[in-house]
Amino acid sequence: MELRIGVIGIGAMGRDHVDRINNRVNGAKVSAISDINVEVATAYAKEIGATFYEDAEALIAADEIDGIVVTSWDPTHEGYVLEAIKHDKYVFCEKPLALEASGCTNIVNAETAKQKRLVQVGFMRRYDRGYEEMKRELDTGVLGEPLLLHCTHRNETVDSKYDTPMAVENTAVHEVDALRWLLQEDFVSAQVILPKKQTQYTHPKLHDPQLILLQTESGVCIDLEVFVNCQFGYDINCKVVCEKGEIGLTNPTYFNVKTEQKDYTRVPSDWKERFISAYDKELQLWVDGIKHDEITGPSAWDGYMASVTTNACSESRDNGYKVEIKFDEKPSLYQ
Amino acid sequence: MELRIGVIGIGAMGRDHVDRINNRVNGAKVSAISDINVEVATAYAKEIGATFYEDAEALIAADEIDGIVVTSWDPTHEGYVLEAIKHDKYVFCEKPLALEASGCTNIVNAETAKQKRLVQVGFMRRYDRGYEEMKRELDTGVLGEPLLLHCTHRNETVDSKYDTPMAVENTAVHEVDALRWLLQEDFVSAQVILPKKQTQYTHPKLHDPQLILLQTESGVCIDLEVFVNCQFGYDINCKVVCEKGEIGLTNPTYFNVKTEQKDYTRVPSDWKERFISAYDKELQLWVDGIKHDEITGPSAWDGYMASVTTNACSESRDNGYKVEIKFDEKPSLYQ
Amino acid sequence: MELRIGVIGIGAMGRDHVDRINNRVNGAKVSAISDINVEVATAYAKEIGATFYEDAEALIAADEIDGIVVTSWDPTHEGYVLEAIKHDKYVFCEKPLALEASGCTNIVNAETAKQKRLVQVGFMRRYDRGYEEMKRELDTGVLGEPLLLHCTHRNETVDSKYDTPMAVENTAVHEVDALRWLLQEDFVSAQVILPKKQTQYTHPKLHDPQLILLQTESGVCIDLEVFVNCQFGYDINCKVVCEKGEIGLTNPTYFNVKTEQKDYTRVPSDWKERFISAYDKELQLWVDGIKHDEITGPSAWDGYMASVTTNACSESRDNGYKVEIKFDEKPSLYQ
Amino acid sequence: MELRIGVIGIGAMGRDHVDRINNRVNGAKVSAISDINVEVATAYAKEIGATFYEDAEALIAADEIDGIVVTSWDPTHEGYVLEAIKHDKYVFCEKPLALEASGCTNIVNAETAKQKRLVQVGFMRRYDRGYEEMKRELDTGVLGEPLLLHCTHRNETVDSKYDTPMAVENTAVHEVDALRWLLQEDFVSAQVILPKKQTQYTHPKLHDPQLILLQTESGVCIDLEVFVNCQFGYDINCKVVCEKGEIGLTNPTYFNVKTEQKDYTRVPSDWKERFISAYDKELQLWVDGIKHDEITGPSAWDGYMASVTTNACSESRDNGYKVEIKFDEKPSLYQ
Repeated sequence: MELRIGVIGIGAMGRDHVDRINNRVNGAKVSAISDINVEVATAYAKEIGATFYEDAEALIAADEIDGIVVTSWDPTHEGYVLEAIKHDKYVFCEKPLALEASGCTNIVNAETAKQKRLVQVGFMRRYDRGYEEMKRELDTGVLGEPLLLHCTHRNETVDSKYDTPMAVENTAVHEVDALRWLLQEDFVSAQVILPKKQTQYTHPKLHDPQLILLQTESGVCIDLEVFVNCQFGYDINCKVVCEKGEIGLTNPTYFNVKTEQKDYTRVPSDWKERFISAYDKELQLWVDGIKHDEITGPSAWDGYMASVTTNACSESRDNGYKVEIKFDEKPSLYQ
Repeated sequence: MELRIGVIGIGAMGRDHVDRINNRVNGAKVSAISDINVEVATAYAKEIGATFYEDAEALIAADEIDGIVVTSWDPTHEGYVLEAIKHDKYVFCEKPLALEASGCTNIVNAETAKQKRLVQVGFMRRYDRGYEEMKRELDTGVLGEPLLLHCTHRNETVDSKYDTPMAVENTAVHEVDALRWLLQEDFVSAQVILPKKQTQYTHPKLHDPQLILLQTESGVCIDLEVFVNCQFGYDINCKVVCEKGEIGLTNPTYFNVKTEQKDYTRVPSDWKERFISAYDKELQLWVDGIKHDEITGPSAWDGYMASVTTNACSESRDNGYKVEIKFDEKPSLYQ
Repeated sequence: MELRIGVIGIGAMGRDHVDRINNRVNGAKVSAISDINVEVATAYAKEIGATFYEDAEALIAADEIDGIVVTSWDPTHEGYVLEAIKHDKYVFCEKPLALEASGCTNIVNAETAKQKRLVQVGFMRRYDRGYEEMKRELDTGVLGEPLLLHCTHRNETVDSKYDTPMAVENTAVHEVDALRWLLQEDFVSAQVILPKKQTQYTHPKLHDPQLILLQTESGVCIDLEVFVNCQFGYDINCKVVCEKGEIGLTNPTYFNVKTEQKDYTRVPSDWKERFISAYDKELQLWVDGIKHDEITGPSAWDGYMASVTTNACSESRDNGYKVEIKFDEKPSLYQ
Repeated sequence: MELRIGVIGIGAMGRDHVDRINNRVNGAKVSAISDINVEVATAYAKEIGATFYEDAEALIAADEIDGIVVTSWDPTHEGYVLEAIKHDKYVFCEKPLALEASGCTNIVNAETAKQKRLVQVGFMRRYDRGYEEMKRELDTGVLGEPLLLHCTHRNETVDSKYDTPMAVENTAVHEVDALRWLLQEDFVSAQVILPKKQTQYTHPKLHDPQLILLQTESGVCIDLEVFVNCQFGYDINCKVVCEKGEIGLTNPTYFNVKTEQKDYTRVPSDWKERFISAYDKELQLWVDGIKHDEITGPSAWDGYMASVTTNACSESRDNGYKVEIKFDEKPSLYQ
């Protein structure tokens, strides 16, 4: 039996997920879609053989839908996720889970009331083979305790709508979740430094690059460079300095070339080239989880913790001081 | 509609493919199996929810089967593939397509008579991201014409049933197909050198390592080291020396470690770790091909050409001289 | 004509330099030594065919001495260097030039009064081929302006006399000079972070690792990890993030090994293995400079600037706040 | 006391050695030169403060000369070396020691008659840090016995005087000596393959690339690609496949760059960039050897063995068959 998935929001990311579910994931089909753009969505539904629902809440409620994917406009995420919980439906929501930490808390509360995990947040880095292998290696304890992390998140370029706050909220948020998962620790302080020297390739509304410092409960220090107009490619680095050695994420390469006095490998041009397998795996395991009635991916709680951490980063950036991170007690559902 | 696949032969490779089709490939399910071991196969069929056919030819003929996977004992491949062609069924056959080149010719003739490609041979290297990217890069022509190739095929260890001929027939055969595809050229001569110096880790029936020299029609020279007890891991290398530069396959790595005065990456321990994605992609594209009624993977002709080339290698190894490779004219079906 | 060099202080570093001058450097010989340990020094002088001077100032004043190397106890550096300037002698002084910035100022003033550069400070990183090539590449401007630097200075282990302040004064001081030279900019602020999480391999008087943040006049941000019990080797890294790309120092390696499922290169065990050629080149160029009556290596002013910067780091470490760096106007002699 | 060196032949290589001895080597000076071009040599002698000898044999015989460097026209090497032996003078001779193996034999006989090593041949690879470290690692035995070697010797480009035989005699000869030294074994057979496919960047008198196969006494097989118009740089590779692992020479790099979607290190443009330190060390140790009256570098016997091996390669190339290598018994002087 193939699972019947309903997708709300069919922008670029929504269509990516539709294509993934229909053509690469095992055991599911997109059978319904909803989008505020009725005309486009109707045509698209026809193209992929799905039913179009003008009312997203009707899609969520429909008996013939086994799971919901929320890839709509960010401000609508919270409402759709709450609606899915109300109907006891599994829901995969792209980040952010909600615009504010308080919205995440609403979702956590709703889910906790059901005493069942229904929500998965789209933090796909946890499914990247590099992060997975690093975590496995760290968890053996052979390298001793982690002490410091040096990370970079670099994009080749961003468009003119990308502004200073997005460096934290849209970009660094990936590391915030991935590093919390990697270290199995929460962050207790955040500081954002806006270096005086910026790249000529930025624009007035974007401070680029930025430097983010995080500390965990046990005292691990993290420095994270966010540089979104680095020009040379999509370049994710993560080095974990431990007591007996350092482990670092490599950007997997598939060939190398020697020519014109250079010995080179390629730097990926964007996140698709780098993380496409992680996206595929993320959705496959979500589908598998629904089948087994138990999902294990990033939870609503993880979405909440990412939110409180990025909020602290933003406060630090705007005010210049280091911010202590406060968060609620973790409900037993997420232990 | 999910395709209904029948699998003949449920040894290790057969079960791998069953698992792949049922859990990772999109759009197909294994609905029937056949195997000479009735008891084991009956139980396994039950476990995976498939029908057991005692008679493999009945499975092939069954209306409810859309495609056949042949992973049975090598000597039976030819017969099952011919039977599938007879019933106009798509068939995926693990290498070797047939024990002898003449068996491959029988299949080519049967398929040519139908004027339709039905057969795909399990040469999965063509689906490896490294080979794919190398080929794309070579095809741009930026590096000029290929002149020389330096290759290695190394296994950590082999069992005591693995003997001298298998280095060509089971191991080098992968390079034989992959390099022919990479260069888009046929081989015209083969020479196998058995070096006097062997590893202490081999046994009396296995000459290890071996050196294979191949030349293509245009005059490209290839040296291929086959070393199946190299002890340190599964290590596939392929460097193509061109007029303006060299391009080499890298073994993708996902993390690196600095510890104990070493800076290291992992060498995979076996072919599964190295080529698992290629196997997944091979089957996915075969399934997609059946749906579109057009398959594009390695053909019966490719199986035939691999066979004549490895036969020439074996003749050279047994007789010590360089062997010219003769082959039939390519039927238009495979152009 | 070989230059006649007098060496004051024949501890490990002094003897290293003696060996270097006598056996690897072209154009000079150690003809005199002085050391407070008369007995040992007398025997050593005999061994290397040099004259022993009980009075270091007499050695400095001696007509038959063309250049002085000061490798004595740190608190004596300032006095010997001033004495050499008084006698118009070229003097190579190991870091630190003086214990306090004020001592460096005394030397700068004495040298400025002579209107001639006589002093070279032992910052050998500038002579490392890696730093030299990076600087040449940066100076072409192809990568655009430098924006951020990520650096590490790691030692395998240190002895029990190495304490918290030494991480700045003896270790980070190398980066302080090398980065100032690399960027051709002075530092304007310093901050030292002592992470709560430390390695189990440190001792009560040493906070290990430490994180140092520096900013230059133009606003380039530098983070420098100092970790002196990292266990795995001597590991110097320096990545310069520019507007169009990143350039990084590599630890040159001479061979790589694949064995036991690892593909590794060696990490050097100590600074000698890593920087021995830089030390040789530093002394060779100093000798060549004396011959041409013009020395170009790190100057007394560079010694002074290193001192004010490390002092600021120490103040930040002890007080927890970011420290603005103040320094005198640069005399024209050093332009 | 500085050694007084006489240099015969002041072409490019001769001047390189003069510069090396006068400016980088410790303990020697070039005090005399000789060259057939009287005018140029007189001026050069004046420039470097050396005496010009019109008669090279007078230079060799002169009491005030402690060691001879022969960098003259290849056909004159043998005569000058024999003359130096006659006068019991240490002589450093650039390769080839003699044009024919018989000439090498004359030198070996003359030296053996003196029962003292006086001759060093300019095989500088043995002094390269990479080869040295590989040899040390191999000699530990940790990787087991060497079984196969894969080597490349690539030049960016050669001039129009460089013809087919030079690929063996001027280029491969470096590997011939270095690998014999690395393995501590002599070669017993040689085969040269001229691939039908050549680079467009060669000219009618040069077959490029070429493939050389060598076997040692114990049965180690070596494949060596010589490709002297490879366009992309000077690229020396040497991988030794052993029973438990592979060790390979790396081209040391000093920085890496990420820019324009590439992550690259530099490939050296010529042998000077790659092996300059090896040349320096070669001459330094020769000078040190003269001082201690015992030289240890590549001997006349090594020159002879290189000669018989390259002769066998040439015979194979011209005739197409594999050639067995015959050589004299090694005199006890060279044990």
